[in-house]
Amino acid sequence: MPVYKAPVEDTLFVLNDVLGIEKYNNLPGFADATPDMLDAIAGEAAKISEEVFFPLNLSGDQEGCTRRDDGSVTPPKGFKQAYDKYCEGGWSGLSVPEAFGGQGLPYVLHSAVGEYMSSANMALMMYPGLTNGAIAAILVHGSDAQKAAYLPNMVSGVWSGTMNLTEPHCGTDLGLLRTKAVPQPDGTYRISGQKIFISAGEHDMTENIIHLVLARIEGAPEGTKGISLFIVPKFVLDADGRPGTRNGVSCGAIERKMGIHGNATCVINHDEATGYLIGAENRGLAAMFVMMNEARLGVGLQGLAVSEAAYQSAAHYARERIQGRSLTGPKAPDRQADPIIVHADVRRTLLQIRAINEAGRAFLLYTALQSDIAHRSPDAAERQKAEDILSIMTPILKGVMTDRGFDNAVQAQQMFGGHGYIEENGMSQYVRDARIAMLYEGANGVQAMDLVGRKLAANGGRAVMATFKEIGDFCEENRADERLSSFTKALKKGLNDLQAATMWFMGNAMAKPDNAGAGATDYMHLFGLVVLGFMWGKSAKAARERLDAGDARNDFLNNKLVTARFFMERIMPETALRKARIETGADSVMALDAEAF
Amino acid sequence: MPVYKAPVEDTLFVLNDVLGIEKYNNLPGFADATPDMLDAIAGEAAKISEEVFFPLNLSGDQEGCTRRDDGSVTPPKGFKQAYDKYCEGGWSGLSVPEAFGGQGLPYVLHSAVGEYMSSANMALMMYPGLTNGAIAAILVHGSDAQKAAYLPNMVSGVWSGTMNLTEPHCGTDLGLLRTKAVPQPDGTYRISGQKIFISAGEHDMTENIIHLVLARIEGAPEGTKGISLFIVPKFVLDADGRPGTRNGVSCGAIERKMGIHGNATCVINHDEATGYLIGAENRGLAAMFVMMNEARLGVGLQGLAVSEAAYQSAAHYARERIQGRSLTGPKAPDRQADPIIVHADVRRTLLQIRAINEAGRAFLLYTALQSDIAHRSPDAAERQKAEDILSIMTPILKGVMTDRGFDNAVQAQQMFGGHGYIEENGMSQYVRDARIAMLYEGANGVQAMDLVGRKLAANGGRAVMATFKEIGDFCEENRADERLSSFTKALKKGLNDLQAATMWFMGNAMAKPDNAGAGATDYMHLFGLVVLGFMWGKSAKAARERLDAGDARNDFLNNKLVTARFFMERIMPETALRKARIETGADSVMALDAEAF
Repeated sequence: MPVYKAPVEDTLFVLNDVLGIEKYNNLPGFADATPDMLDAIAGEAAKISEEVFFPLNLSGDQEGCTRRDDGSVTPPKGFKQAYDKYCEGGWSGLSVPEAFGGQGLPYVLHSAVGEYMSSANMALMMYPGLTNGAIAAILVHGSDAQKAAYLPNMVSGVWSGTMNLTEPHCGTDLGLLRTKAVPQPDGTYRISGQKIFISAGEHDMTENIIHLVLARIEGAPEGTKGISLFIVPKFVLDADGRPGTRNGVSCGAIERKMGIHGNATCVINHDEATGYLIGAENRGLAAMFVMMNEARLGVGLQGLAVSEAAYQSAAHYARERIQGRSLTGPKAPDRQADPIIVHADVRRTLLQIRAINEAGRAFLLYTALQSDIAHRSPDAAERQKAEDILSIMTPILKGVMTDRGFDNAVQAQQMFGGHGYIEENGMSQYVRDARIAMLYEGANGVQAMDLVGRKLAANGGRAVMATFKEIGDFCEENRADERLSSFTKALKKGLNDLQAATMWFMGNAMAKPDNAGAGATDYMHLFGLVVLGFMWGKSAKAARERLDAGDARNDFLNNKLVTARFFMERIMPETALRKARIETGADSVMALDAEAF
Repeated sequence: MPVYKAPVEDTLFVLNDVLGIEKYNNLPGFADATPDMLDAIAGEAAKISEEVFFPLNLSGDQEGCTRRDDGSVTPPKGFKQAYDKYCEGGWSGLSVPEAFGGQGLPYVLHSAVGEYMSSANMALMMYPGLTNGAIAAILVHGSDAQKAAYLPNMVSGVWSGTMNLTEPHCGTDLGLLRTKAVPQPDGTYRISGQKIFISAGEHDMTENIIHLVLARIEGAPEGTKGISLFIVPKFVLDADGRPGTRNGVSCGAIERKMGIHGNATCVINHDEATGYLIGAENRGLAAMFVMMNEARLGVGLQGLAVSEAAYQSAAHYARERIQGRSLTGPKAPDRQADPIIVHADVRRTLLQIRAINEAGRAFLLYTALQSDIAHRSPDAAERQKAEDILSIMTPILKGVMTDRGFDNAVQAQQMFGGHGYIEENGMSQYVRDARIAMLYEGANGVQAMDLVGRKLAANGGRAVMATFKEIGDFCEENRADERLSSFTKALKKGLNDLQAATMWFMGNAMAKPDNAGAGATDYMHLFGLVVLGFMWGKSAKAARERLDAGDARNDFLNNKLVTARFFMERIMPETALRKARIETGADSVMALDAEAF
């Protein structure tokens, strides 16, 4: 059976020691984020994750969701009660402004505790997760009346939200979408069309479901310039703002998926449903991207979260399972065999996962902190720099942490041998659940193209230059410190590869855009390696400083240094391979006829 | 919906042009393997695979196997009829000696057609696949009476076979096994104990099931030196050699697995079952390894087979699915969007899979050919060299082709975006089915340790030196050919990395065995890359020669050269990374306390 304990000590190390969150106490909401407060909040989040969410993970996977003939949907047993506890604990509005019933705490804290909850039960956490995206869109693009009407109940979790984007024939290319919106004399719209892959699309856990729906207003231009965003509540609000008439929106089917069985992924049919335009006409894509960017960070988080959960079960199993003997002589001579953790290949596998997870946690929280700074800093230059870095990091976090998170789940499953393949042991679920994160909210190839095709060149490369400078400065500042130089040297080498690959794109992708496409995925991973290496550099530095200061977390900090070394020795060198691939260009990639594949 | 066509043209290219199978027509069974005959047999295998096996693949996954309260098991609908056609076609005994009812054809041909059948329906092919392993063990270790009693009906497929090795507490470490065998006055044994993960363990497709069971004779030594192998038929043969009394062997449960749902993976309970010793007392492990080595080649084949099937569906989808526009302007201006195969990132993904599959097919058949030579050559030196190479290639084929096959299935699924996650589209099944191949018949970490810890040093490194020489000679012989030099140069660089890593082990693993363990998996993959590169070198040479000869397969051969180039540019350079990791040794890997994981 799988095990899970929230990695509170590591979260606090990242927040306090690596990111120095106290430095940001001038930002709204951050003054409350003292070390004691962080400790208390993380501790509470650990508790609900371990005790309420986690026990429902495997059973939720096995039971799945049930749709009845009337289109009503019930999530797995226990999900509603767990969700209610989540709302009672105030988790749903943790970082939402107090004006709308939230707690106004940092988004970085929301991410920190979100990891635990997604580790414990990814499918369950997607119900409030989708609501967060919808809240973000209404906060940014909704009218005051819309905010007042919808946000308080969404923030409290009494109502939930969804994103209705994909249609059977279009996902990545939303310009093809057909769902139509017909204006009514009263200013509302009649929405008709079919949406698919709608996470948390229908269920009985909340009193209302607020669908945010992309549709084309009759007569609007073709393509992405004719798309608008609408609020389509499951129950249209009555004069008192309470759920009233059932709207023409219904669940046509639940998708049979590889994983996240506990989440109701629905076909949603809109049949002349009443919708309310949010934001400007034909500007729906911009509003959608507010949700999407939030969702992408959330999906990157899922990659980390499942990887961490899988790691813990694998490490536990490796300590418990006895089989064979150490190459260097019996380590448990009193037993019939040694625990398999004595084997170097098992440890290498576990360290590989762990080195990605710990850096990934720092990467996630670093990125979430940029979001806080971008939205809350009083300083315009600081806001812009944070926004720049956030724009670069969003596709990398999503693409790299979900690719690596999935690989890690597979490797963790591998530690179980044949037992990993048996559903009761829970490792298959981690692999199946992690798999979706590489696909949804923009498949990872789309993230790579977003990075290479859009983010790299935006504003004359300002964002990427700011990122390189930040990492380069770190290497330079710590170059003289002998005890850190093995880390900074490896990081600098990776950064050089990244900069060279970036220059290569500048020189070769203008004339031949396929050169960018052929190298995009390698570039995203090259960038990810450097960012993860940067996180290890910062973590190693923080660990050294704390050890020098006589910090009581001696073992924890020394283990950090070992894992940092492992990362720099075994994972960081991958940058050279990625760079070499990029520099071979698109010639062989584009040479075959389409029919030859 | 998935699509599948057997890659007959490529198989024939490998057999005829790359491996030059005609050169071996002095070996028993090979005289019949003329190009025309190979073409005809491959065509028939393609037919049954595409028309009989493939239509049952998805339905078999969705339906699974059914166990009733009496312990009887029924495979998915249609499996029995398909299996009967397989037997009627003579496929079950294709390479078994004619003396036992087989056709005596080359094993390499058995592997070639086995790929198609496993691509088309891996779960179904496992029923006869397990029988093959049991046949091999009886052929090598059985008495004449046992061969006469069991082989003809197993070869014809009227009876099937299984391997009963694993117990709940032991898999890799068979020395721990507890199933006991009590000698009886009549020379038989009473077998009692529980076995798990028994593929094709119980079903109603054949008239009898011949279990080959590892057990410990009462009073035998502890550990692996006290293990014997037994024949335990489901129905004990009567005086006429026909299935008679039901034996004390039964299916206690069907495992709930991640994939291969169509195969009945059983808990098998032996309750004073009648067993017959096969081979010598306490020498069961040696007999078991005959099955195991055969099975490992079969599992490597599965890695390739699923990867090929997944590739074909992904390529088909990429040509059909329209979404977005090419970076270089619309390629299908008359449609609303371009097919996604216009995107360089999509092509890169497909070529990555294809470059592994085509080289993997050559690797599989090259290895199977070594098995033929080792067993059939009249020349002792030739037999030994082939046996040496086979011993090296077996763990590499199993470990590398299943790791890469799984990764490829995941990448093929990725081409479908969110649709890849929906079970109806079949890509999830490929991923879930491919996953088991990394785990069973020795998890891939065990393959890596077998290679590094056993095969490398055996007979003073004779086998590995023979392998290096063969690849080195190829590079040397073709160095002067300008049109091949880009391939041989890249291959030679990979070989240098492999030789350097081998030297590193020689110098560093004796004093510190964990250095070998910490590098084992990277070494296996490094070796695999060089072997795949060797296959591409040979394939490119063959393609060039055929083109020069004015061969009519112009497009096919030119596409070979493009794919060879892609491999050398994008995949081969990974050897440097693998070598660098190996050379970092075990220090950081072994530094943490077990409790710190």
